[in-house]
Amino acid sequence: MQKASLPKGTRDFAPVVLKQRQIIISSISEIYVKYGFEPLETPAMENLSTLTGKYGDEGDKLLFKILNNGNILNDFTYEEFTETFENQHKLISKIAEKGLRYDLTIPFARFVVQNQHTIQLPFKRYQIQPVWRADRPQKGRYREFWQCDADVVGTNSMLCEADFIKIYFEVFTKLELSNYTLKLNHRKVLEAVSITVGYTGKLTDLTVAIDKLDKIGWEGVEKELVAKGMLNEQVEHLKSLLIKTSLSKEALQTISSSLKSCPEAEVGINALSEVINFLDNHPAIQGVELDLSLARGLDYYTGCIFEAVINDAGIGSVSGGGRYDNLTGVFGLDGVSGIGISFGIDRIYDIMLERKLFSEDNQPIAPILFCHFDITSQLYCIKIADKLRAEGIAAEVFPDIKNIRKQMDYANKRGYLFTAVVGDNEIVQDVVRLKNMKTGESFDANYESLINQLK
Amino acid sequence: MQKASLPKGTRDFAPVVLKQRQIIISSISEIYVKYGFEPLETPAMENLSTLTGKYGDEGDKLLFKILNNGNILNDFTYEEFTETFENQHKLISKIAEKGLRYDLTIPFARFVVQNQHTIQLPFKRYQIQPVWRADRPQKGRYREFWQCDADVVGTNSMLCEADFIKIYFEVFTKLELSNYTLKLNHRKVLEAVSITVGYTGKLTDLTVAIDKLDKIGWEGVEKELVAKGMLNEQVEHLKSLLIKTSLSKEALQTISSSLKSCPEAEVGINALSEVINFLDNHPAIQGVELDLSLARGLDYYTGCIFEAVINDAGIGSVSGGGRYDNLTGVFGLDGVSGIGISFGIDRIYDIMLERKLFSEDNQPIAPILFCHFDITSQLYCIKIADKLRAEGIAAEVFPDIKNIRKQMDYANKRGYLFTAVVGDNEIVQDVVRLKNMKTGESFDANYESLINQLK
Repeated sequence: MQKASLPKGTRDFAPVVLKQRQIIISSISEIYVKYGFEPLETPAMENLSTLTGKYGDEGDKLLFKILNNGNILNDFTYEEFTETFENQHKLISKIAEKGLRYDLTIPFARFVVQNQHTIQLPFKRYQIQPVWRADRPQKGRYREFWQCDADVVGTNSMLCEADFIKIYFEVFTKLELSNYTLKLNHRKVLEAVSITVGYTGKLTDLTVAIDKLDKIGWEGVEKELVAKGMLNEQVEHLKSLLIKTSLSKEALQTISSSLKSCPEAEVGINALSEVINFLDNHPAIQGVELDLSLARGLDYYTGCIFEAVINDAGIGSVSGGGRYDNLTGVFGLDGVSGIGISFGIDRIYDIMLERKLFSEDNQPIAPILFCHFDITSQLYCIKIADKLRAEGIAAEVFPDIKNIRKQMDYANKRGYLFTAVVGDNEIVQDVVRLKNMKTGESFDANYESLINQLK
Repeated sequence: MQKASLPKGTRDFAPVVLKQRQIIISSISEIYVKYGFEPLETPAMENLSTLTGKYGDEGDKLLFKILNNGNILNDFTYEEFTETFENQHKLISKIAEKGLRYDLTIPFARFVVQNQHTIQLPFKRYQIQPVWRADRPQKGRYREFWQCDADVVGTNSMLCEADFIKIYFEVFTKLELSNYTLKLNHRKVLEAVSITVGYTGKLTDLTVAIDKLDKIGWEGVEKELVAKGMLNEQVEHLKSLLIKTSLSKEALQTISSSLKSCPEAEVGINALSEVINFLDNHPAIQGVELDLSLARGLDYYTGCIFEAVINDAGIGSVSGGGRYDNLTGVFGLDGVSGIGISFGIDRIYDIMLERKLFSEDNQPIAPILFCHFDITSQLYCIKIADKLRAEGIAAEVFPDIKNIRKQMDYANKRGYLFTAVVGDNEIVQDVVRLKNMKTGESFDANYESLINQLK
């Protein structure tokens, strides 16, 4: 006999939780669909050659690798095998050729390249699937978690950026999380900042450092940058440049003048200006904060970058994304620009749960349980349940012939909206004894009034 | 640069296919819900201790194992490591402690045991998730495929069996596959057959052999059973007992008399008789064939067993299931009887595709694409698209300013229902030039008539 347990960092989703999560997922996917995105799914496993080297060294370490099947030591002589004791990488690379997907973006890029001759560009897809990372599990961080991505590839138009800003607005409005901040920046503006402070060519160092701003504060960032060779006055200059402000033409002008000597700044500012044009006073613009300290670590971003935070939730960002000029290049397809965002279902769920945003009506309450006294009344119940189901109404009949108290007790604990008790009297009168489990109210109902109550 | 490719036996689901598969999945899940089942999801990974030994030796070989993270050789001295060259099992058991789920039944049993103090019995859950098996990939057999399960645990009532028979009827009717056969048998009847032919105590040998009846025919089964020690006259007796017939009280009487000396037969026949009572002339009974040669290999079945076949599809069974007295016993919870069925989405999809059962309307056609000539007309289009989205209608605006022919060409290839072209004239008149892409019909539409067309 063995103990029933789950691997660290993984979770079951029991009915109550799963139904609540499905509310989030269907809200987001319905909005994606309204903006012309179509669903895509990719396999849980990818070849490790597809995944490795795409997420940095740290990411590579977090990949879950799948052991080859059959004789895993086929390719080894005894000598080669024993040598791997000092060289695990060599061992692992030969015994594991597949891994679990780490995000949905790389599998999407792989899909686009593999199907480049059949898909029409621009191609807009959404994808809602779990991803796996061997991170140290902690509160709010799991080894299996859900991403909810949308990407457009094959167009440089800033209309995509504007659409995503509207999507954020619609999603958070729909989920009653409308007190959010959508941080927006442009990688070229960040590059211009780096150049303006005289830190040319070290954009990655800069982004890596300021990405940690939330965690380690300016003091920590300063320490890191100085260690990498930035002068104290450069850090001060940097601090003065990394402003946060509402997105507006005026704000762009301010930034433009503080970065004026730099052509990279113009590219970024023109792009952001186009985004404003496309938004054209849409209410979504009010949620946007131009945050020049937003960096987003991932190397593949080249244009606008996003990060969404639910204000006062104290849980970090719930979504991020950005434009990448050449995501598919690594698989041999150049010149396909794209942009995408990703919602983290798990954090959104945690916030909504804490804020009690799941109404009780969304709890997994089966509408009605039929209770009975003997096989005759049970068969009568089954007939009625079948008629309800034919009308599309979910109905259950207690399966066993048991004491009526036990059946009612079960109904209470499971949380049915109604019970219908049937005994000899009810059969004679062709009614059920209907009980509203919330109010406790009880009355005889014929089939007509039963349907009316349940509809 | 690397080639974009997928691991053997895995598939992407592009939008067209995914939307069709979702029709199957939502049809089945809606019917499960009508019968009172609630959704559950379990992680892709389980501890190998949970999975191993549950699916027979053959199943154990097909488990996908996940490499531990970090230093995988931590637990080995050099000597111990080198010894594993001749003992891979020892190596594997130490470097891989997790595996991908092989089915949805064992994870469900694990869930029930782990949550035994919070769930109410009887507990009815459905679960629709992928499973992974390192089978040799071939037509219609994948290494990642979807199961669509429903199980009830915590009741012995034959009402469950009757409900599943109705569920089969509703699912196949809904999917326009109503020419199906639901094979039904009872393990106790099979046991009685084994005893009656004098092959007592060798039920597993018998089920393993007759399970292959479809593949190797009676000749092959006979050979196998004789090799296991059955006499030729016993095989003849067996053949005469394994009848196929419609499910009815009369059929049960016939079987009862041919197995009369055997108390196991009575247990099975009484159960089947109860199923008939609960079905109470429901039309679902017409799809049921009492097939005494139905064995279902899995050891854990103890009562009624099911297998559903779409007639003339030539693809084997699309669903199976049965009652098990003690599925959770292996995890330390005894005395919980259960019953479950599982639909294979992939085979159902293949049949429906071949029979052209996906109507064109279910294809992934975004309803409308707005086309334009310049930034002014594009902004006008965006305004209208936003209004449509506010009404819940999906709408897209072509993102780039391109030749109108290219935009229309894109619309054609992507399969939009409508295009709306907007130029200076349309802006002045506050209309769009609407084109029905199926009929080719084209006319000026104001916002009102646009909405009407799309609704």
